[in-house]
Amino acid sequence: MNGGSEVLLARLSDGLPADAVLTDPDVMSSYAHDMASFCDAGAPAVVVMPRTVEEVQHIMRTATALRVPVVPQGARTGLSGAANASDGCIVLSLIKMDRILEISPVDRIAVVEPGVVNAALSRAVNEHGLYYPPDPSSWEECTIGGNIGTASGGLCCVKYGVTAEYVLGLDVVLADGRLMTTGRRTAKGVAGYDLTRLFVGSEGSLGIVVRAVLALKPEPPAQLALAAEFGSTAAACEAICKIMEGGHVPSLLELMDRTTIKAVNDMAQMGLPDSTEALLLAAFDTADPAADLAAVGELCAASGATDVVPADDHAESELLLQARRLSLTALEAVKGTTMIDDVCVPRSRLADMLDGTARIAEKYGLTIGVCAHAGDGNTHPTVCFDAQDPDESRRARESFDEIMGLGLELGGTITGEHGVGVLKKEWLAREIGPVGIEMQRGIKQTFDPLGILNPGKLF
Amino acid sequence: MNGGSEVLLARLSDGLPADAVLTDPDVMSSYAHDMASFCDAGAPAVVVMPRTVEEVQHIMRTATALRVPVVPQGARTGLSGAANASDGCIVLSLIKMDRILEISPVDRIAVVEPGVVNAALSRAVNEHGLYYPPDPSSWEECTIGGNIGTASGGLCCVKYGVTAEYVLGLDVVLADGRLMTTGRRTAKGVAGYDLTRLFVGSEGSLGIVVRAVLALKPEPPAQLALAAEFGSTAAACEAICKIMEGGHVPSLLELMDRTTIKAVNDMAQMGLPDSTEALLLAAFDTADPAADLAAVGELCAASGATDVVPADDHAESELLLQARRLSLTALEAVKGTTMIDDVCVPRSRLADMLDGTARIAEKYGLTIGVCAHAGDGNTHPTVCFDAQDPDESRRARESFDEIMGLGLELGGTITGEHGVGVLKKEWLAREIGPVGIEMQRGIKQTFDPLGILNPGKLF
Repeated sequence: MNGGSEVLLARLSDGLPADAVLTDPDVMSSYAHDMASFCDAGAPAVVVMPRTVEEVQHIMRTATALRVPVVPQGARTGLSGAANASDGCIVLSLIKMDRILEISPVDRIAVVEPGVVNAALSRAVNEHGLYYPPDPSSWEECTIGGNIGTASGGLCCVKYGVTAEYVLGLDVVLADGRLMTTGRRTAKGVAGYDLTRLFVGSEGSLGIVVRAVLALKPEPPAQLALAAEFGSTAAACEAICKIMEGGHVPSLLELMDRTTIKAVNDMAQMGLPDSTEALLLAAFDTADPAADLAAVGELCAASGATDVVPADDHAESELLLQARRLSLTALEAVKGTTMIDDVCVPRSRLADMLDGTARIAEKYGLTIGVCAHAGDGNTHPTVCFDAQDPDESRRARESFDEIMGLGLELGGTITGEHGVGVLKKEWLAREIGPVGIEMQRGIKQTFDPLGILNPGKLF
Repeated sequence: MNGGSEVLLARLSDGLPADAVLTDPDVMSSYAHDMASFCDAGAPAVVVMPRTVEEVQHIMRTATALRVPVVPQGARTGLSGAANASDGCIVLSLIKMDRILEISPVDRIAVVEPGVVNAALSRAVNEHGLYYPPDPSSWEECTIGGNIGTASGGLCCVKYGVTAEYVLGLDVVLADGRLMTTGRRTAKGVAGYDLTRLFVGSEGSLGIVVRAVLALKPEPPAQLALAAEFGSTAAACEAICKIMEGGHVPSLLELMDRTTIKAVNDMAQMGLPDSTEALLLAAFDTADPAADLAAVGELCAASGATDVVPADDHAESELLLQARRLSLTALEAVKGTTMIDDVCVPRSRLADMLDGTARIAEKYGLTIGVCAHAGDGNTHPTVCFDAQDPDESRRARESFDEIMGLGLELGGTITGEHGVGVLKKEWLAREIGPVGIEMQRGIKQTFDPLGILNPGKLF
């Protein structure tokens, strides 16, 4: 340990309980990165786990005084390296601040600390007849603070929108340790610039979220699903367009391509027919879901579905959705390593996105499976490769970039819900251009003049 | 005209058609202010009405070169003075940029210029089976650009949210004339800080919105309404809490207090019984609105409603809602002038807000009618006074401030949907505190280093 670290540890320990300051090298190494592939991570000087707002303020005051970078973390389930440590940094893990402070059925809000796990909040509000929609696939592990930092989405977004739409107000500890409250606990409010929304998706680069007021919905009826099999992705995409154009509001509208179907079949013997090129899953949580499914089933048939299988009950629905839930695990099994892209295009361009991705897979001689939040046009092309094979790894990385380029060409965005982190920094600049980057840097400078908050992320 | 103005006019005219540069004093005077009471307005040097993005860029480059303030305007239906001119400014009216550029039923978006009138957009998208929810009461006149600038709301918000939730992306001309694109035309996207949302509600202080990508919903069934009469506001508020706690999702949930009911009765002979202290209006645009109304009617009765009148059809619903639509006009007729407040509280505190407002009216010897977007907790206490009476005017202004103080005490915000402008500048600082104001000023400085964009508004 060098002298700088000793001073840092001494100063931190001045305002933190002993068990909140972790310096064991193995522990620190396990907190060095999130779940992204191809993202460098440095070695932290210390991992701190505060339990109170005051402790977070102490940490940030110390970091400012000593000019030490701070990397905030939730459960590190992110997929863009936004939570990766930099050398000599303080890793600020919020997982011990995990209290649900309030649930109000009349005001339809919850007030939570950032370390609350998404699923824990979902279950707690369910007990009050309420619903917190955002459901990233890591929902059993990921934290609300992480969801806010990365602006995460999930399967529900096609009907219920993303995390951003559920954050009403925040308490934030700024880089210099001052506490700022943004937003409100009311249903509406327009007092000044929307700083709350500015923090959502800011990946810990503007301040540390220590408390959030979240909007809740009434719990909807359990959803009922159908699966529709198609002989081509073009036919499946035509069905998606017809469903959305027809004014339907599914609670889930997911697509799996042939590669993904095959991977799931290989792993779990789901018995999907080999001729299936695309599987569409639709669900409704309306008052009469069977009627909605019947209408959507007809649109699928009219678009050329080879088979349409509506579930009769909730248990059958869950079985149908199981194939989608297994997709990433199944694709991981193909080659050992996956790189998950997150390109979102206008849903009218979904067919072009899928065609283009198939061409890119062929060009690079790679297996790329696509599952998509199809109703949102949000695709997750997943490159399967052997990380021990340098040439295949290089091709994986190149194809990944080409997929983002294709997304931009089609009027889309490089990230629908996973964020920028370190993985997509160069691509952020391409998407938003030099003027946008200049303004973003200006905002960063306002909140973090010393540049100590999660440096090297975003831009 | 002084020399400075001559130079300004010459430079502006260099890049604008002659009919886009207005200097007639009467015309300029009519463009000097919006519809807010008690807000000073200066005398503009010129009113410009560009028709293209390039013309807006020319105007901003000229303003930057000559350091002349620019006040952007839509239809000037705002209620906080945000569109009021300052002395010697360029009034930049966007009303001639009024084209709907695209409507896509598959992508559920519209792309519009800022001068499109809200009602024109609503009708245009209706023809495609789509719905643009935000419906401020000025919807037949107000523009989308103005709606974005002030983050306006309306009657629909209890179910459909506010303008902010429908703005996906923007083209913005910055203070120095550069063009910046924010956001996206996809359903989801998290690439960098949310600059789109930062512009919504920024009251023209960060840049000039010249194009917007708006999200649309499928057109819902026509709504069916009921009216419930209560002998006390407390009982009406209890019903509101029960309705929301019960998981109902009305498309409208409005409250009128006794003063408002009396004003409407006096003006339009609606024949509401004199004993009615509060009138609650609820509507549903669901698949089975009659069933929803029956359930809500029972909750009203359980809370002590003296009468519950459900409409049988759309025409009857419109008749019931007529009373609410006439409220402001009727309150204006009471004393000749009104001052409309816009305090939003957690809906669980609505009864306290109404009680407190009644106490404030009594304390100042004033008539204050309240109509409220009750489902959102968004109240519009409307102070009726004679503007020719200096003492009554002073009391009106003092009561107005006291109502905002009450809103903050109850955990609310000083503005639910009307914005800050010049009317509530001091109160913005009280609501968000010095750290928040400092950060807001920093953001302003980033976008508008010379301070020429709508100076003197917000903070």
